[in-house]
Amino acid sequence: MSKLTFDISVSLDGFVAGPNPGPDHPLGEGGMQLHEWIFGLESWRAPHGEPGGATGPVDDLVKEQFESAGASIMGRGMFGGGDGPWDESWKGWWGDDPPFRHPVFVLTHHPRETLTFDNGSSFTFVTGGIESALEQARAAAGEKNVAIGGGADTIQQYLRTGLVDEFQLHVVPVLLGAGIRLFDDAGAGELERVRVVDSTEVTHLRYRPLR
Amino acid sequence: MSKLTFDISVSLDGFVAGPNPGPDHPLGEGGMQLHEWIFGLESWRAPHGEPGGATGPVDDLVKEQFESAGASIMGRGMFGGGDGPWDESWKGWWGDDPPFRHPVFVLTHHPRETLTFDNGSSFTFVTGGIESALEQARAAAGEKNVAIGGGADTIQQYLRTGLVDEFQLHVVPVLLGAGIRLFDDAGAGELERVRVVDSTEVTHLRYRPLR
Repeated sequence: MSKLTFDISVSLDGFVAGPNPGPDHPLGEGGMQLHEWIFGLESWRAPHGEPGGATGPVDDLVKEQFESAGASIMGRGMFGGGDGPWDESWKGWWGDDPPFRHPVFVLTHHPRETLTFDNGSSFTFVTGGIESALEQARAAAGEKNVAIGGGADTIQQYLRTGLVDEFQLHVVPVLLGAGIRLFDDAGAGELERVRVVDSTEVTHLRYRPLR
Repeated sequence: MSKLTFDISVSLDGFVAGPNPGPDHPLGEGGMQLHEWIFGLESWRAPHGEPGGATGPVDDLVKEQFESAGASIMGRGMFGGGDGPWDESWKGWWGDDPPFRHPVFVLTHHPRETLTFDNGSSFTFVTGGIESALEQARAAAGEKNVAIGGGADTIQQYLRTGLVDEFQLHVVPVLLGAGIRLFDDAGAGELERVRVVDSTEVTHLRYRPLR
């Protein structure tokens, strides 16, 4: 049964990016520390075209995250660029070999033709809002899950609607002190804790919202 | 060797109290949910004069928390009451049998005589700031730890100074959506994760700031 999910790295103080993002720090000051745990894993390296890498329980959960998703949804900022009409020559942050290898639905206020890539990745631009994006992503994903890629505001929108079935936080042992909060306007509600993986310094916590 | 520590219950979205505190909700709306996990434990019931209760790994860590502390520090709000000169008849929120059973140092701008209780609890009012409170608490604690009781602003002040040796979050599976954040102005820095206890739905994460 297809689920709506997200998986995201977060500092212990709740930030998904640090303060003062800029050309030298696209994820804000200190923000890259949130992602270092994943770069050495086989499951991360393979879809990015790099050989080797660590295996084990943490690699297994990243593999699970990639393999379970049949489509993704992301905000325009995560595809690349601010609001406003599109420059059609701009193909986003993700290069010529985007690591998704499945259809990605980008929330935007401005229509644009779908971009497709040889590796199975595509970007479809959705102007009809988060429920329209979810409907299209579910159709594309089939029996697989729909993954919300981010950013935090997109995740918050889906959490507030009560549409998220399950999510996993990768809690990195660092305090960023400031930046973009994952849970800034995400609504209230009880959760069921589904799983804890703590075999490295990062703690992987999986939850299911209770409705 | 005496450590400066804190142990605090926090929602997954980082709040130690819910929004809109008032007479019916002293911990804010939904805030009491953060503490329900502790009330049934033997280690909690005994110092509050109640018999029985659950034992096991979670009870053990609460027992450890109580037994390791030889003194506490808290903000004036946690002792009871807002800022301003003292009404000497006001003995705080904690009743005639405060559960600390050791010296407590209360940060305040207004001097007041120490309050002592038959069970070993006392409240000493410190007007000299957080370092003075820590010095007095260390002297009182001897070889035992000094525990920062709260609230969040007092914890943040000590985190910013770099004086905290170790802390434990009891992460409760609930989103409060708003309220008082534990890490609102706590500074940045790397942490070492010391321990994870996840035998119930609450996840107990212990960290050590790296300096």
